[in-house]
This record gives sequence, C-alpha cells and structure tokens, in this order.
Amino acid sequence: MTRLSDKALANYMSADLPPPSARWQGFPAYNFVGGHNAPESIPTDLLRQATDRVLQREGHTLAFYGLESGPQGYKPLREFLAKKLHKYSAIRCTADDILITSGSLQAMDLINMAFLKPGDVVVAEESNYGGVKTRLARLGVEVVTVPLDDQGMQTDQLEKVLEKLSADGRTPRYIYTIPTIHNPTGSILSLTRRHHLLQLAETFDTIIFEDECYADLIWDQQRPPSLRGLDKSGRVVYIGTFSKTIAPAFRVGYMVADPAILAQILSLKTDAGSGALEQMVLAEFCQEHFDDHLLKLNGLLKRKLDHLTATLDEYFGTAIEYCYPPGGIFLWVKFPKAVDTTKLDAIAQADGIAVNPGKGWSWGHDASQYIRLCFASPDEQTIREGISRLAQLCQEEFQIPEVSANTSITQQ
Amino acid sequence: MTRLSDKALANYMSADLPPPSARWQGFPAYNFVGGHNAPESIPTDLLRQATDRVLQREGHTLAFYGLESGPQGYKPLREFLAKKLHKYSAIRCTADDILITSGSLQAMDLINMAFLKPGDVVVAEESNYGGVKTRLARLGVEVVTVPLDDQGMQTDQLEKVLEKLSADGRTPRYIYTIPTIHNPTGSILSLTRRHHLLQLAETFDTIIFEDECYADLIWDQQRPPSLRGLDKSGRVVYIGTFSKTIAPAFRVGYMVADPAILAQILSLKTDAGSGALEQMVLAEFCQEHFDDHLLKLNGLLKRKLDHLTATLDEYFGTAIEYCYPPGGIFLWVKFPKAVDTTKLDAIAQADGIAVNPGKGWSWGHDASQYIRLCFASPDEQTIREGISRLAQLCQEEFQIPEVSANTSITQQ
Repeated sequence: MTRLSDKALANYMSADLPPPSARWQGFPAYNFVGGHNAPESIPTDLLRQATDRVLQREGHTLAFYGLESGPQGYKPLREFLAKKLHKYSAIRCTADDILITSGSLQAMDLINMAFLKPGDVVVAEESNYGGVKTRLARLGVEVVTVPLDDQGMQTDQLEKVLEKLSADGRTPRYIYTIPTIHNPTGSILSLTRRHHLLQLAETFDTIIFEDECYADLIWDQQRPPSLRGLDKSGRVVYIGTFSKTIAPAFRVGYMVADPAILAQILSLKTDAGSGALEQMVLAEFCQEHFDDHLLKLNGLLKRKLDHLTATLDEYFGTAIEYCYPPGGIFLWVKFPKAVDTTKLDAIAQADGIAVNPGKGWSWGHDASQYIRLCFASPDEQTIREGISRLAQLCQEEFQIPEVSANTSITQQ
Repeated sequence: MTRLSDKALANYMSADLPPPSARWQGFPAYNFVGGHNAPESIPTDLLRQATDRVLQREGHTLAFYGLESGPQGYKPLREFLAKKLHKYSAIRCTADDILITSGSLQAMDLINMAFLKPGDVVVAEESNYGGVKTRLARLGVEVVTVPLDDQGMQTDQLEKVLEKLSADGRTPRYIYTIPTIHNPTGSILSLTRRHHLLQLAETFDTIIFEDECYADLIWDQQRPPSLRGLDKSGRVVYIGTFSKTIAPAFRVGYMVADPAILAQILSLKTDAGSGALEQMVLAEFCQEHFDDHLLKLNGLLKRKLDHLTATLDEYFGTAIEYCYPPGGIFLWVKFPKAVDTTKLDAIAQADGIAVNPGKGWSWGHDASQYIRLCFASPDEQTIREGISRLAQLCQEEFQIPEVSANTSITQQ
C-alpha cells in the first residue's frame, strides 16, 4: 500500500485549519507562561482523603454517565458552588442554575457556539486573554475593543463604542469582560463602572459574558460583587473555574446563566458529561477545605509576586513599569519604547525563558511594549535566575536596562 | 431593569441551534438506553488504592496543565495504551502516536473538525450510533450508507457506493465504521471484509475512521485485528475509550493516528488538556488490573445478556428476532412489521421504560421495526420487570406478541 505523505494530507483534511501542533518538548527551564500553579500548593493529602471517602461512598455511581446527577454535573459540586458563588461573588443561584464544564474553556466554547456566527461583532477589553483572541479569530468574529486603566474597562469608552456600533446598525453579540483580576492587567473593575456596564448592556440590549477565572485569587479578599451578582435582568452569562484555585490539571469549570440560556447551551454540550471523578473529589474537598485552602494559596501567591517584583526591581530598576496587582497569577510589565517584546521573547525562548509578549494578549492597540509574567509556578530561585537572565538578554539586545540603572547585571 | 424573556433570547443567540435541553428528571425506572454499566462492575476498592498511590506519588504535578506529559495526555496512560492496543487490537504504536481525549466523543468531534465541512460526504454503516447521526446532521454533511449483515459492513456494497460517488466526482471525507461489536447490531466485521475495506479506501483514496468503543467487550476475546492494526498506509484514524471497560463517568477516550494527522488534530484541541486525575487513576489501575477486570466484566455482561435474551424469549416468544451478539452492551431486536417502534417507545416512556427505537440509530433504510436494548446497567429483576411490561404494552397496542405465543403475559 502507498503510504500517505504529510503533503498528501492536505487533500483529506479541511483547508482552513490552524498550523499543526509541534511535538511537546517539555516545559522551558524558566517558565513564566501558562496558568500553572505551585506544586507545593496542591493539597495532596486532603485530596487523597477526599477521594478515598467519596469513592468508598459513591464509587459505584461511576457506572452511570452523569453519575446520578444528570448532564449539568455532579449535584453536590453544584450545591457547593451555589454557596461559594453567593459568598465570594454575591450571586444568588441554585444548583439548577449551574452547568459544570470541562474547564472554563469548554464553557467559553459552548457560549461562543450558542451566540456567535462568522461576521458577528463582540466587544472586549483591548488587552485580553490570548485564548479568547485566537478563538474569536478562528470563528471569524469581529472584535471591537475598549481601553483599560487600573480600574478595569473604561466604561465611558465602552459607551462610545456601543454608540458607534449602534449608529452603524450593529449590536454586539456580547461584551466579554474579566472584571475581577483582569487578564493580563490584574485590575478590578470598580463598583461604579460595574453599574455603568450593566446599564449600558441594558440600553444597547446585549449580553455580558463575565469571566471570573481569577477572581478568587485576591490578597485581601476585598472585591465588588460580580456583574452576575449585581444584574437583575438575566443578561449576564458567568463562567468560573477550579483550575486556578485547586489544580490546573483538574479540568473543571462552571457556568451560571438564566434557565433559558442554560437549557440552550446544554443542548450543545454533547460530550456525555464532564469527567466525574474530578467533580466528586472537588465537591468532597471543597465543602470542608475551600476557604482555608484559598487563604493559604493566596498567601503563597502574594509571596511569589513580592519576590518577582523585588527581583524585577533589582534587575530592571526603573527601566520597566508595572501596577502591583491586587491578586492573580500574572504581572503585566511595560518596557520602554525601545524594546520590542516580540523580539525579546524570541531571544529569551532560545535561552529557555518563556514569557508572553504583549501582542498575543491584545487587540486593536499596540501592546508590543508589554510582557505578561506568570509567577505562580516557578520557585523563588527559578524566578530570580530567569529574571536576571531576561534582564541580561534585554540589555544585550536593546541596551535596556541601562547598565548604570542596575549594576548588578554586570556583576552576574 | 427589564428581565429578558425566554422569547427575547432568540434575538441574542444563533438561529440554527438544536432545541434547548429539557431539565433532567432522573433515570427512567426501566432504563435500556445509554452506555451505562452495572454499578457492581465498578472496581471501587482497586480504584481507591490506585488513586491513593498515584496522588501520593505525583499529586503535586496537578499544578501543571498537562501534568508533566504535555498536551497529548498523561504519558503513563499512553504507555499503557500502546501495550494494550498491541495486545487487543494488533496495533503497533508508541505513546507518541496516541492522543488522550475527554471521552471518545471529543475524539470524534476533533476528527470531524479536522476533516469535515458542510456539503462534504461521508460513508457509514446504515445502522449506526445515534450520536454520529446527530453530529453529522448538525455539520451539514451528507451521509451515504452501506448495508450490514452478521459479518458487519457489506464491503461489496461499499464498493458500489464508492464507485457511484466516484462517478459523480465525489470522494467521501472518510468511511466511518464500528467494525468490532458494531453499534447497534453487535456484529464483528470479518477479516476478509477488513482487507477488502482497506483496499477500497486505498483505491478510492479516502480515510477510514475506525471506532473501537466496544471492541474490548467480547465474550470469548476472539477478534480480528483492528483496521488500524492491519493498515500499512496510515489512512486509518482510530478511536477508543475507557467508558465501556472501566466506568462511563470517567471521560477518558483516545485516538491513534499517523503523526501528521495527530499534529493537525492536536492543534484543534484547545481545552488545555483533558482531566488529569482520571488519566492518572486509569493508568495506575490498568497497568495492574485491566486484563483481569475485563475478564470479570465480560462474564458479568454475558450473564446479563443471557438473562435479557431468556426474558425476551419468555415474554415475546417467536414474535421478535435478534442475533445473539458476541459481545457489547446492547441487543438489536427486530419486531414484526405491525409494530412501529417509534410509537412503542412513546408508549413505553410514559410507563417508565426507555428503549432506543430504530429510527434514531439508522440512516437511509427503514429501521422502524427495530429497537436497541442496553443491558449492562439494569439488574436482573429490573430487566425482567421492564421486558414483561414492554411486552404487555406492545401486546395492548399492536397485538404482538400474540397472546397464544406466550401465556405468561396474561398471568402477570
């Protein structure tokens, strides 16, 4: 038989696919990308206890698709979430209003499937999660962006955007926002702006897609109510996840939406349910330990952030700028104009250092002076070595930081 | 604020969505649908041990998306699968040739995403898994069907189908087949036909999409090599699952394909990995216990099938026909012409009995005389009560079975 050549494959597969994935080569030595967490943050022993308990009690229910809970997900987990969402996000809902998904990314894909068609328009913050950007591009959806500041999305600018779209006879399918610990800026949308955003969605008659993936990671636990919590009209579709609070490799996210929206979205979830064991273990663990675990985790993450910012200050001095975020797992760092972070990233990659250059995390404005640094996963020594090497590479290529600004570089 | 009415939602969501899902009402009392398994088949204690061991040893790696294995899935599970696929399906591959997916349904969706566009044509067996039917319909893909007999797909008929398509200048994107324990007929494609099918795929230059979801559930463990195992050209894309052999609620499936196909498909898997805990537990459990577990499970399933067929014989007598399948979890039952199984299903549903009427499991031929009965999950008493009630309802509506054929109905 003739062997199919790689080239001939083009004859079989669809024409407009993204480039094939390269073979995974392991994590880079200095990994400042991805939503990974600290290995020491995983509550292994408590998870073992929780798993053993739930498997002993209910393991036989794994014989059923959806356990004994149906397609919306393991009911005790949804019941925990209803309480947790009330306590942390001021959302009033019951287990019936919640859909468990395979990570919040599946929730996002389902929402996009329900709301979007090629040629539609959506509104989003101008700096944004890269995965949203690639998804919307692949769907052929136009994105109109709104600038951000340290209080989150500038809703007066949003109003102008919506007015302009309306003048063109267009209604965005949704306004996508990460209001609480915005990715990548780390900002929290102020309460005033939250009310303004809700009012604008009402006036211009559109949906708000609220992504609270990072919202539980706040150092002082002070945060405004979620948009879904403030909303009285039913026009906020809300997603969240356990990836950031418990374990990234657990693929368990969730969606809260009004019954009619949820029923429609559920019809598109044709995967025979999301993984049940992780749902069972999370429910069993979280009912007892979620609050304590979160406190500990946030302490750990803040210490890592402090270490990262101290290290950046030491090696880059005043050459870079950043807002110290109130929570999260990333820092959005601004370089001087002379630095092209896309180029810096390429140089750094060759040296085993991975960062997110701003371009991949922004639309409609030039973010090529920025990088996103994820700090949850690397240990303190790795952060120190990675940042010092990055400074050295940046210095060699762009003469930034100026050596005079930080003599320690030459002391390496 | 104005509350969104259900009706107004139509203004926000896409127009061509499937009907919204109804609220889940629990399983029917007599449940002969779905791929559920017997609660007593779940190896709870061994799973507890496996989980505890793997969490103690590697729990901290849950901090990383993809653990330390990358986007193709937990490496020890892929290594187990490489051995298992060789032993059971005569497939020679390494862990690198395998992609772990969130159930085999995600594998199916990824393959469809890579290969299909609206207006494309695919070839499939004329009776088929309902989920494939609904998926292809939603994708706007035309399905040309091939008849089956007790040796599986009739490849001489396939040849005619391919010739006709070729004469029309059309090449099917793939030939979808469940060659080993076909769903719903339970047949195993003969070795001669396997060779013929492979030769036809070569001649007409198309892909074979081989679905081995049920293939491990064979009473005497005798089966021909898989198509992927026989193929030397790289044109077979293969999927399988742990849902049927270990636990349906574990959403862990897998795909084997040539590197160029796998790399392309991986680029479409944008879910940040499939659930890791289930992969870890499965690897830990299966390395030691898969073979033994499968033997026990097949014994249990065959006893259930024997009970089902004995009960059918008792209550329906000669009024119905079926082929006793060599494995699997379902029986494909033929009723006399007088019985419309879609109507029978509606009547049975109202009485708490769920069956799959043939129409949903077939294309291009009239299967309204058939029903599919899944027997793995209900216990013996439930099977007995369900079948006797079904016979009674069928008798009342269609006068089949004739009372004389089975006096026990009137004795109920």
